[in-house]
Amino acid sequence: MVVSIAIRSKTATALKRGLTLGRRSISSFNWEDAFDIQGDLTEEETAIWQTARSYAQEKLQPRIIEASRTETFDPNILKEMGELGLLGCNIKGYGCAGASNVAYGLIAREVERVDSGYRSAFSVQSSLSMTALEKFASEELKEKYIPKMATGDIIGAFGLTEPNHGSDPGSMETTAKPHPTKKGVYVLNGSKTWISNSPIAHVFIVWAKLDGVIRGFLVEREGQPVGALSTPQIKNKSALRASITGMIQMDNAEVPEENMFQNVEGLTGPFTCLNSARYGIAWGTMGALEGAIDLARNYALERKQFRQPLARYQLVQKKLADALTDVTYGLNAAYRLGKLKDEGRLVPEMISIVKRQNCDRALHNSRVLMEVFGGNAASDEYQIGRIAGNLFVAQTYEGQSDIHAMIIGRAMTGLGAFTAK
Amino acid sequence: MVVSIAIRSKTATALKRGLTLGRRSISSFNWEDAFDIQGDLTEEETAIWQTARSYAQEKLQPRIIEASRTETFDPNILKEMGELGLLGCNIKGYGCAGASNVAYGLIAREVERVDSGYRSAFSVQSSLSMTALEKFASEELKEKYIPKMATGDIIGAFGLTEPNHGSDPGSMETTAKPHPTKKGVYVLNGSKTWISNSPIAHVFIVWAKLDGVIRGFLVEREGQPVGALSTPQIKNKSALRASITGMIQMDNAEVPEENMFQNVEGLTGPFTCLNSARYGIAWGTMGALEGAIDLARNYALERKQFRQPLARYQLVQKKLADALTDVTYGLNAAYRLGKLKDEGRLVPEMISIVKRQNCDRALHNSRVLMEVFGGNAASDEYQIGRIAGNLFVAQTYEGQSDIHAMIIGRAMTGLGAFTAK
Amino acid sequence: MVVSIAIRSKTATALKRGLTLGRRSISSFNWEDAFDIQGDLTEEETAIWQTARSYAQEKLQPRIIEASRTETFDPNILKEMGELGLLGCNIKGYGCAGASNVAYGLIAREVERVDSGYRSAFSVQSSLSMTALEKFASEELKEKYIPKMATGDIIGAFGLTEPNHGSDPGSMETTAKPHPTKKGVYVLNGSKTWISNSPIAHVFIVWAKLDGVIRGFLVEREGQPVGALSTPQIKNKSALRASITGMIQMDNAEVPEENMFQNVEGLTGPFTCLNSARYGIAWGTMGALEGAIDLARNYALERKQFRQPLARYQLVQKKLADALTDVTYGLNAAYRLGKLKDEGRLVPEMISIVKRQNCDRALHNSRVLMEVFGGNAASDEYQIGRIAGNLFVAQTYEGQSDIHAMIIGRAMTGLGAFTAK
Amino acid sequence: MVVSIAIRSKTATALKRGLTLGRRSISSFNWEDAFDIQGDLTEEETAIWQTARSYAQEKLQPRIIEASRTETFDPNILKEMGELGLLGCNIKGYGCAGASNVAYGLIAREVERVDSGYRSAFSVQSSLSMTALEKFASEELKEKYIPKMATGDIIGAFGLTEPNHGSDPGSMETTAKPHPTKKGVYVLNGSKTWISNSPIAHVFIVWAKLDGVIRGFLVEREGQPVGALSTPQIKNKSALRASITGMIQMDNAEVPEENMFQNVEGLTGPFTCLNSARYGIAWGTMGALEGAIDLARNYALERKQFRQPLARYQLVQKKLADALTDVTYGLNAAYRLGKLKDEGRLVPEMISIVKRQNCDRALHNSRVLMEVFGGNAASDEYQIGRIAGNLFVAQTYEGQSDIHAMIIGRAMTGLGAFTAK
Repeated sequence: MVVSIAIRSKTATALKRGLTLGRRSISSFNWEDAFDIQGDLTEEETAIWQTARSYAQEKLQPRIIEASRTETFDPNILKEMGELGLLGCNIKGYGCAGASNVAYGLIAREVERVDSGYRSAFSVQSSLSMTALEKFASEELKEKYIPKMATGDIIGAFGLTEPNHGSDPGSMETTAKPHPTKKGVYVLNGSKTWISNSPIAHVFIVWAKLDGVIRGFLVEREGQPVGALSTPQIKNKSALRASITGMIQMDNAEVPEENMFQNVEGLTGPFTCLNSARYGIAWGTMGALEGAIDLARNYALERKQFRQPLARYQLVQKKLADALTDVTYGLNAAYRLGKLKDEGRLVPEMISIVKRQNCDRALHNSRVLMEVFGGNAASDEYQIGRIAGNLFVAQTYEGQSDIHAMIIGRAMTGLGAFTAK
Repeated sequence: MVVSIAIRSKTATALKRGLTLGRRSISSFNWEDAFDIQGDLTEEETAIWQTARSYAQEKLQPRIIEASRTETFDPNILKEMGELGLLGCNIKGYGCAGASNVAYGLIAREVERVDSGYRSAFSVQSSLSMTALEKFASEELKEKYIPKMATGDIIGAFGLTEPNHGSDPGSMETTAKPHPTKKGVYVLNGSKTWISNSPIAHVFIVWAKLDGVIRGFLVEREGQPVGALSTPQIKNKSALRASITGMIQMDNAEVPEENMFQNVEGLTGPFTCLNSARYGIAWGTMGALEGAIDLARNYALERKQFRQPLARYQLVQKKLADALTDVTYGLNAAYRLGKLKDEGRLVPEMISIVKRQNCDRALHNSRVLMEVFGGNAASDEYQIGRIAGNLFVAQTYEGQSDIHAMIIGRAMTGLGAFTAK
Repeated sequence: MVVSIAIRSKTATALKRGLTLGRRSISSFNWEDAFDIQGDLTEEETAIWQTARSYAQEKLQPRIIEASRTETFDPNILKEMGELGLLGCNIKGYGCAGASNVAYGLIAREVERVDSGYRSAFSVQSSLSMTALEKFASEELKEKYIPKMATGDIIGAFGLTEPNHGSDPGSMETTAKPHPTKKGVYVLNGSKTWISNSPIAHVFIVWAKLDGVIRGFLVEREGQPVGALSTPQIKNKSALRASITGMIQMDNAEVPEENMFQNVEGLTGPFTCLNSARYGIAWGTMGALEGAIDLARNYALERKQFRQPLARYQLVQKKLADALTDVTYGLNAAYRLGKLKDEGRLVPEMISIVKRQNCDRALHNSRVLMEVFGGNAASDEYQIGRIAGNLFVAQTYEGQSDIHAMIIGRAMTGLGAFTAK
Repeated sequence: MVVSIAIRSKTATALKRGLTLGRRSISSFNWEDAFDIQGDLTEEETAIWQTARSYAQEKLQPRIIEASRTETFDPNILKEMGELGLLGCNIKGYGCAGASNVAYGLIAREVERVDSGYRSAFSVQSSLSMTALEKFASEELKEKYIPKMATGDIIGAFGLTEPNHGSDPGSMETTAKPHPTKKGVYVLNGSKTWISNSPIAHVFIVWAKLDGVIRGFLVEREGQPVGALSTPQIKNKSALRASITGMIQMDNAEVPEENMFQNVEGLTGPFTCLNSARYGIAWGTMGALEGAIDLARNYALERKQFRQPLARYQLVQKKLADALTDVTYGLNAAYRLGKLKDEGRLVPEMISIVKRQNCDRALHNSRVLMEVFGGNAASDEYQIGRIAGNLFVAQTYEGQSDIHAMIIGRAMTGLGAFTAK
């Protein structure tokens, strides 16, 4: 199987680089892993982590500044991830590694340490698209698509958000109806927007109302009638510029009935996928913040003002200490979720707490760390501005921060405050 | 042994009240334990937790409003805690239960859920005084004092802070010298202030400089020459009014040489004890915040304005959600520390992170939750004002928040920013 | 007239103390008046300011620690203020000075620099009670009461808030009805709570529903039937302990019909008075913050840690600079309101902005400044804790911060968000 | 004179658009001018304001999205501003309008309402370059340059910051020395960076050390030896993309001695100019925030979720109310500075307070307002992301926020905390 090979080949490197395996007694503080989570990882998790880190640092990091500058996503990236067995690695079977959810989180962390856009591409493929299939599709569909999505040969996109319905997907306007003439075929009409990967995707998980009930469909790009499906790119984004984003415009797009998910109705379908993606975001944003801390710390140690490194100043140290505190707490929370997910003890409100908090704190701290760079933060070569800009988007997608606050509030009080009078 | 009996007798109650033991699969979100930490506890930890909670709610809660109003500490409280085996419960031997550090943290959490002052009394006895003996005293001293301190028959206090030296204890002015005439006796001179329990303590762990080197002494109140030792109470405190605080004024106070700790010198001694206390504060402040959330949530559900319970308003739900998030992260961090401590993997900087963050967030959120009560927060019967007031003190003692930020900053950068030019 | 004499006799002192009159060119920065507002004041305003400052520092400051400790309000304070012409000084005629609204604000600032409770007593008498009469009462009532209230011989209280209706006074339950037997008399029934001065007041401005419409009444304590009016004190407050607070319990309390305000109905009446009080709070809270800054700065200059005054540390300077910034902006805003009020250009939403922001920032900064004191902030002799505690109440009364946010939001959007679905 | 004509021709428009002149009594709240500052403006100030607003909205607004997208600055903009008499309008004589400093501030506000980059170009020309000449240059230099700079025919840049010296300009490395062979000529060597307008400027105000003392020079691009002066553009900025930024690299750049400012030495020279620019930033950033509020409010009124406009939700209204509060306070502070400057009562620390606070609050609130847009904030057509991105730079230049905090702290305590031990 792809993954285990990839992992095996990387293990030696992992050990050489100083990532040790299994529990150990430690005697000194490691600010890069302040709660010694590494000490709890399994050997497989450590190896996957190392694979992801090496790949991210060696293959993604060198491309990111130019990619972001030119707003370009290289589709080979998904193939490369696929070769390493990273895509959908927590799925069992269908060519996937069946690794732990903790391992999945560690990948998201390392990929987003480079760029949130790359992690978005990874998430959409793994958590939204492959998970939708795994959870809701027929065995035939699973067999047909998941293995090729695991290798990155088929790229998926996930169509839920519409131009007029973001936080409130239940009001979606996209419809599915039986085709007027072709038996066993549905036609979909409507628009989805802010869809990561849509311009390059081969298949689309689209949620649409059939007789007023939300249902899920796997829509293939190939074989559509002319003009039935278009996926224009949204350009000139101010963030996540290294991921490609677009719309899914459906004008009687056709789907064979076997591509409709049989065993899910209503918002349960999309929310299940969103929760899977949110779990990855919880990890990923902490990776982004780790990257920001690393950059800011290095800058503060090298840059001198008033004849002293910035790192010697109380106001700078406080910014670093605050950021380290939040990333430590956030990783500890994400790790907790991962263990609970692996044990079948995870419930959605837990994810709302961590997705919201980790996005909020990653965003806040990366913005504060920009201040360490002074005006240099405005130069894209210092990268900190890109990190912070990306994290704003992470805060808004898969449930904006305030929406998750209301989810938590409802869980505490039994009262919904989503709607106004 | 005292503890195990107490625990056993309480287990039935624990089960009745819904605290279940051991791992379990959960299907719904429990906002009072949002990360299901309870599901990971051992049977013994659960039982101790339940003992502490029952005691705190049944015995401490009914006294606290009056105690705080009148600035009174009932010394029986330490005896009661002793009877239940709570004091120094994580010490092995010497009449102590040898429970886990997680169990110790759960006690601090439940006691501080009622009042930070009560937890302070518990901490000073357990983490500062008993720990000092356990770590640094001779076998004779341990045998002589720890068992009676475990039962609360001997009350200890811990003298480090001086009127002119708080954040910088290394500059302490208290001295120890050989007695001019009595062989085998030291005389101590100096003042310690903000010493919890000092007015009622029987013994004092005092840190003083002997030939310029900080050493630890166990000073007994009994048998001192007239005027050699006085412990005036500090009255009219605006917070922690249910704990008793005072000074330790030493004017040739006498200590037999066997009461000097032989195997520790310098700041290692007091800092070891402080780290032990900080660990308890990390748990305790989360208990206080849990109490605040519980009060605010209940008030918000009961109090109506504009014909709706406050709990239905977005601005109120956000305050609750923010507080729940911080308490969940903070408990998860404290629990992580406990496990690392139990496994011998804890290092002091980890404690600085959690002590600081949990105090800061408990303080911040409890203040925000006061807003839910409007003007009623100013009435002591609603309790929220007392909780927030107490937490300010928790933020300042055992290392003020900014000092811990500088400890973390130094650990990250290798550069100290404690002192100014 | 009382006031002008008092002012005149103080002018010499004002000049001696360095408060200069009128515009002047300045060449150096004065952190105590960072925007040089003093340079714009009229001679009369400067003299009143000086009167208020001298009185507050010389007569109020020496009493406040003990008063707050023992929860005692000395009613002579209102007489003393009356003698100096401070009470209702911005009212024209009826024995009042007819000073500018800026002058009124400067008094509130100086009184609250000592304690928010003293300013509350001043506000209730001046802005709530005397203003209610001046705006809404018959000429006879004005002549009868205002002059004696200006001297402090008659103490007033203002009854709007009820136990179940704080932010939503329109739902009040207190009723007025014609007396079943006595012609020309109304009977009032209901409870008002959190009423400053109520236990010692001679007259009460009470808002009650007559045939479902809110009307205002001047209720006299004297001459009530037994049991018709009681004003129990609310004790054990955690803040504003130097002001006296209570309820107004009316069980067929009697009011002659000439004591009902003829020319106002609905919430206009109480809101007019509240806006007047809020204006004073906008100034007063800045005085409290000025006091907090002064205390913290002095402490930071005197207190040394690590061999340097705290004031030399970046983290301490930042706290001071933040507080100075907010007090400077807040005073500038309050001064702006005063000028607009004097020119008849003030509208209520302006007051909501400034009342809210000045309370919020005074509260926030005074809490942050507590950190400068470390544990010493818990001792009432350092005063900073009392200041911060008081300011929480200021944030909640006369419109809690969130309520004012919704007032501002409605003014911006045309949409009300006060009520939930 | 150019300006008065421009003003006159616009007055009619101003009146038609509802900007009224002079004091007036108002009866309703105007959220776009919450403290009715407009009511205090002179007729001339109102007319200039209107000129600036019309120009900004009609000429700048239509270009900004594309300019920012393509990182392009159109040098015609300075000529257009010159034609309207906006450049250096507060300078008396030399072809400038001699308008009030308040009028100057109103221009900065309106220009930055469109984009901080445009205001930067305006500031560099007016406050840094023209002010340097007006304050420090010989009469001949003033006559030679200021009039052409007022029309925008000559573009200036201001060279203080160096690659290794930002917050600490006193350590600059650029030197001036007498030319080895040409009498009456200095040669300059060194690099300046982050210099707005440098790639297109005709003249450069350069600060360099002559015999170790900082002196100011006007360097002309024309007539330099080959390779003596180059001004490469800094590309790929993440903010202020509509202003052009570059370096000034001097390799024996030549300056005739009459182009050295005779009457200033040391940091007084550059700091005088910086204070002038900071004054403009204090106004400008509030304009940017006004723009952000306007965009967010409109979006919130138009965008519906859960069947209600976002503007109806408490959490959205609070964001708007907070932003309005800060912009109102900030404009009131900037207006106060302007009046003090006009009256000769301004001192630098006042400017530090307002520059810092207005930048900080504009940045903070514009980021919060991004949340109102959800994911749409990432599309540059919604503009809010560009505004917030720009404001980060405003926070860092002309004195980063923390540096100003230390300036304020020093003014309060007499102790400098700029340097570490």
